[in-house]
Amino acid sequence: MKKLILFFLGTIVMSATIPAQTAAEISAAKALVKKMTLEEKAGQMTQITLALIAKGGWGNEDGALDPAALKKIVTEHHIGSILNTTAHALPVDTWVKLITQIQDEAQNTRLKIPVIYGLDAIHGQTYTLDATLFPHNIAIAATRDPEYARQAAKVTANELRASGVRWNFAPVLDIGRQPLWSRFAETYGEDVHMVTQFGVAAIKGYEEDGLKNTTAVASCMKHYLGYAASRTGKDRTPIYLPEIELRELHLPQFRAAVKAGSASIMINSSEINGIPVHADKYLLTDVLRKELGFQGVVVTDWEDIIRLHTIHHVAPTPLDAVVMSINAGVDMSMVPSDLSFYSLLIEAVNKKLIPISRVDDAVLRILLMKYKLGLFDNPYPEKEAIQNFGKPAYQVLALEAAREAITLLKNDQVLPLSKEAKVLVAGPSAQSLAALNGAWSYTWQGNDDRWYPKDSKTILQAIKEKIGADKVVTTTGPGFTNALNDDAESLKKAAAGVDAIVLCIGENAYAESPGNIRDLALPDNQKLLVETAILTGKPVILVLTEGRPLFITDYAPSVKGIVMTYWSGKKTAEALADILWGDHNPSGRLPFSYPKSMGEIVMYDRKGTEEKREILNENVSWDGYDPLFPFGHGLSYTGFAYKNLKVSNKTLQAGQKITITVDITNTGNRDGKHAVELYSRDLYASITPSMRRLRAFTKIFLKAGETKTVSFTITPADLAFVNATLKTVTEPGDFELYIGDQKTTITYQ
Amino acid sequence: MKKLILFFLGTIVMSATIPAQTAAEISAAKALVKKMTLEEKAGQMTQITLALIAKGGWGNEDGALDPAALKKIVTEHHIGSILNTTAHALPVDTWVKLITQIQDEAQNTRLKIPVIYGLDAIHGQTYTLDATLFPHNIAIAATRDPEYARQAAKVTANELRASGVRWNFAPVLDIGRQPLWSRFAETYGEDVHMVTQFGVAAIKGYEEDGLKNTTAVASCMKHYLGYAASRTGKDRTPIYLPEIELRELHLPQFRAAVKAGSASIMINSSEINGIPVHADKYLLTDVLRKELGFQGVVVTDWEDIIRLHTIHHVAPTPLDAVVMSINAGVDMSMVPSDLSFYSLLIEAVNKKLIPISRVDDAVLRILLMKYKLGLFDNPYPEKEAIQNFGKPAYQVLALEAAREAITLLKNDQVLPLSKEAKVLVAGPSAQSLAALNGAWSYTWQGNDDRWYPKDSKTILQAIKEKIGADKVVTTTGPGFTNALNDDAESLKKAAAGVDAIVLCIGENAYAESPGNIRDLALPDNQKLLVETAILTGKPVILVLTEGRPLFITDYAPSVKGIVMTYWSGKKTAEALADILWGDHNPSGRLPFSYPKSMGEIVMYDRKGTEEKREILNENVSWDGYDPLFPFGHGLSYTGFAYKNLKVSNKTLQAGQKITITVDITNTGNRDGKHAVELYSRDLYASITPSMRRLRAFTKIFLKAGETKTVSFTITPADLAFVNATLKTVTEPGDFELYIGDQKTTITYQ
Repeated sequence: MKKLILFFLGTIVMSATIPAQTAAEISAAKALVKKMTLEEKAGQMTQITLALIAKGGWGNEDGALDPAALKKIVTEHHIGSILNTTAHALPVDTWVKLITQIQDEAQNTRLKIPVIYGLDAIHGQTYTLDATLFPHNIAIAATRDPEYARQAAKVTANELRASGVRWNFAPVLDIGRQPLWSRFAETYGEDVHMVTQFGVAAIKGYEEDGLKNTTAVASCMKHYLGYAASRTGKDRTPIYLPEIELRELHLPQFRAAVKAGSASIMINSSEINGIPVHADKYLLTDVLRKELGFQGVVVTDWEDIIRLHTIHHVAPTPLDAVVMSINAGVDMSMVPSDLSFYSLLIEAVNKKLIPISRVDDAVLRILLMKYKLGLFDNPYPEKEAIQNFGKPAYQVLALEAAREAITLLKNDQVLPLSKEAKVLVAGPSAQSLAALNGAWSYTWQGNDDRWYPKDSKTILQAIKEKIGADKVVTTTGPGFTNALNDDAESLKKAAAGVDAIVLCIGENAYAESPGNIRDLALPDNQKLLVETAILTGKPVILVLTEGRPLFITDYAPSVKGIVMTYWSGKKTAEALADILWGDHNPSGRLPFSYPKSMGEIVMYDRKGTEEKREILNENVSWDGYDPLFPFGHGLSYTGFAYKNLKVSNKTLQAGQKITITVDITNTGNRDGKHAVELYSRDLYASITPSMRRLRAFTKIFLKAGETKTVSFTITPADLAFVNATLKTVTEPGDFELYIGDQKTTITYQ
Repeated sequence: MKKLILFFLGTIVMSATIPAQTAAEISAAKALVKKMTLEEKAGQMTQITLALIAKGGWGNEDGALDPAALKKIVTEHHIGSILNTTAHALPVDTWVKLITQIQDEAQNTRLKIPVIYGLDAIHGQTYTLDATLFPHNIAIAATRDPEYARQAAKVTANELRASGVRWNFAPVLDIGRQPLWSRFAETYGEDVHMVTQFGVAAIKGYEEDGLKNTTAVASCMKHYLGYAASRTGKDRTPIYLPEIELRELHLPQFRAAVKAGSASIMINSSEINGIPVHADKYLLTDVLRKELGFQGVVVTDWEDIIRLHTIHHVAPTPLDAVVMSINAGVDMSMVPSDLSFYSLLIEAVNKKLIPISRVDDAVLRILLMKYKLGLFDNPYPEKEAIQNFGKPAYQVLALEAAREAITLLKNDQVLPLSKEAKVLVAGPSAQSLAALNGAWSYTWQGNDDRWYPKDSKTILQAIKEKIGADKVVTTTGPGFTNALNDDAESLKKAAAGVDAIVLCIGENAYAESPGNIRDLALPDNQKLLVETAILTGKPVILVLTEGRPLFITDYAPSVKGIVMTYWSGKKTAEALADILWGDHNPSGRLPFSYPKSMGEIVMYDRKGTEEKREILNENVSWDGYDPLFPFGHGLSYTGFAYKNLKVSNKTLQAGQKITITVDITNTGNRDGKHAVELYSRDLYASITPSMRRLRAFTKIFLKAGETKTVSFTITPADLAFVNATLKTVTEPGDFELYIGDQKTTITYQ
């Protein structure tokens, strides 16, 4: 498969690293800043939403612009950036026309500075109709192959650029350790090493061809910093994190992404320890600029400057809000629904509340990104880019990614199913596209099937195509959260003549705050469906289409098979059918610990006090890390055996490295892919050590019966942690290393 | 009632503050330290559990000691402190005998240093049979009258001292903001001002008579620091708190308790931000000793030094664990099941890993506490103390406290019930004593009804006595967590002939780790009982006997009445019956926000981003603070109206104060008590301000129709918060003040 991808992307320059800004661009941008008025500078730092220039505002359905509004925004107020859509995705040619109109208007301005347009293309180009949607990050992480992050990003870049858009507000680098959070599916899961590897791969996919190339867009790492860690799980609510944890779990991925060269960064809308990040000079300037050395553009999230006044209540006036955030280090304000920021910024500079040097610094960074993107050479949608929209190979990639993401959690000798067997395909997600694609799918919420491509398939459709409609029965499923009704009864009837039940449950699509949830329990009507299916006595295969883990603790022992699809995008249904009937051998692995209940949300990198154990003299069992399915769990239709774990040296010293090798054999009758993971445990440390930390992983393909040797290299830095003085250190002592069921101990001196 | 209490405690010296250590005691203690060998010092710093000297060890049932073991511990190893019981509570005369034997043995030692015995008398004297048990702290807080904390502590002190025990490991000063936590009921709830007021009142109850007095014991503030804030909710698992939050919500109560004069402090068993508190020199020495000025004894919690090695993994060897904790600032190790600490401490000093000055410092503090308690004058159980055991007035106090704690959450014109009506009394807690008393009740877990006093009453018994057995029917209730069974069916049948159903649900007793819980959902069998009761069509009054809020969200709209009893101790059942039939007018108020679900655990002192609101331009509602019942909720059988809120000055300046007055009228036909609460809101601040903070409260009694004026005084310090530099400050600006439905704004300049 990878060869195929490389083939279709063969026309692209595949560079190892993201090209740096050129000296000529820097000179040109600096010269331009010198020519600009304060108003022109304020305009560059302002980003407004499409509704402000669209005919009919938020009600606009066709992408037509209001010329007077456009002139007011771009010419009269010098606005330098626009984002978003109004109601839903638009055809690619509408985008081309819309962007052309905007850039035409920009060419009418005194300095002819092009506008930069940004979109949230989160798992494929969200807002262009018929763009290819890939698995969400949580599912991409389940593939255990960062190449999928890179390739999906590259296709997304192509389809954005084909739409005339050169800035993508992705990837999400937040770490998914709060499963209640509505954006959990946008994360690469609970482990910081995986988040880092996949995040950097995505950034390379967006940018490595060089931003002038028609196959690239500027990426935007987000959401700096700690956004995923809301204490209650509600989106954009307070985060409480000690800095040691911020640096251990939330900062490394941004450090790596800055080093990789990401062009921009978006700020966490929430507050950390009582300080809204948009007003936090320590994080935005001291850490981000000085310590991490970030040179790109710092953009706010939606409306987050005025919210310092209206919601966070740290700014007594709207003017104070602007002063606080710009002085803290923000370059561009996603205002986005009015021109208040533009006026207040001018007022603040005139009142000397913000030094002009800070404004010049921000404007220079914005102009540099525009130069880097080639907007000054040609701000218009590019013909070569437009040709890259909607290539068939994208769908091949989407299918392959979904196949490798989908994770077989339980298989009590029921899968793969026989193609001769009759099946009942039921449950609320059996006939839903939204439930397979989730957030950011042709609409913000992703929950409107009308906008999905006509060739999209539901699970029911894909299964009928797989085994023939004559072998499939169904019921009209209830909604995801309907009150109890008689659908359980119809399921019972429909099950009478079948050999197995494929019951598709989980969540409908949602994004951001509307996805706030009361509980991770299954809704009552879905519980009833599962109970009913189990009571038929037929083998039940639970298919979970969900953006976060809903509890199935009480049902897991009674069903025969459990398959997690996550939100795996356009080809979820086809990939699922391939797996259920054995045309693809599953290899997905959970990127998070699937919890049993709200009282048992413990991460795999638990501390010693969270280890399940018995304390004999108290006759007490501690129910520590005891998930329904652990981080890394995922079954195959073949078996894999580990042996001969060896290290090149039992002692590791500063500046040296050791190599760990292990032999892995495919012990079954089917070829298969297999993720290999190296974990470490620091036996004693000055900060309570985790019982396991993922330090390296790779994915291999093994033919039936084949054995391969996998090799990992470990340096002292790979065993490090953040200590009490906030330094990342590796302390001398013994470390256990685990690969599969193999284990060894090394000593760092 | 208060007069009655003051009467029966009238023989006690009621001083306003806890007497300080005398200069003579300090000289004597210092002289004694100089005479001691290292072994004798190590023994003083060692605390072992009773099982090590009891005949049969942990299996001992009768309190008989093993003379050889006693000699080994006290004479040969110089052990200075013993704690705990073996299986269950013992008769008071057994305690007297046991303590006498121990002190006899101590008199045989070279220096005749008396042993100090400590117990966990958490809500009354847990481990003496027939001692009076009071409401747990969460219920005491519901009374909104700290006098109950003080009086209950005083009775507990009397019954401890009567048992020959002079050291109580109480009060818990942890703040209850994690309702999953198994020790939630031991807290005074979610507000730091309330925790502080009640905690200090309890400490005064234990100590204000002077520790030499036979009515006092040494208190032990616990668990320093942050213990209640386990992220997952499991007991003794990692806590992640930024220091700003530690200082805002977890430290003020300890600061006030140190100032009040508490004799000792117990350390949090968990780790904060990766550092086990038992090894944290910053918290144990820099903050506790230097900043707070604490002079008393620092004791570990159970086995917590060796756990630095075995569970926390910060100490590579057991010796390191001892070195880390003693150097961090621990004075006494609750080892408690062997003599390892004693040997390792000697080894550490001999190897110069611990300076002898640190040991001398610890031993001096321990001896000073023993001097202060009069143990050097007379270490034996005191005759005057023994006479104070089991006085009838204690039960009057227990009844009154339970009556004021029990909180009426919903009353849809169903309460008070008529004494002519027939009722069905059902549910798992209807016939359980454990469910009314909870943790630390005659056994550690409190769940063994065999050890409760013979005159204890279940809810069923109390109701039969209240209205006559002929008007009461019942069912044999299921257990608290039994699988579904046919009890719902028997409930349905039994309900046929009654006028109302009193359904008693909730939790059985548990303590510490065994109380770890999967979820706050009601167990399925209890759900079925509630659903069945509702479906009968009879008015249902839910009685909640629980140590933490179990979700009743789906049922609250359908039942007619909801009464929260918490774990209100010995007289819970009688107090409940008094309230249900109107012989007492309820006045309890929730000391926590009763959440709707796990995804909605937001505290009353929420931030702006947690405020329930609509964001119109996004068509999104934010479901912020929206509990089933808010903090402070609690109904009465009469009504109270507020008017004429006045402030003495609209402007507050440094060094000044303002007085806020409000008129409150009892608008109904019944006399009643009523808690009055003053909340503030800082409109803008450098740290995102809470939307409400409780700043003062009082409780008044109003006859039917009566009006009283309540007055509060506010200084700038009462409006303070911890800022980004960790200083407690009051920033200039506007503050809203709320009392009842009245509101005003003042300006701090």
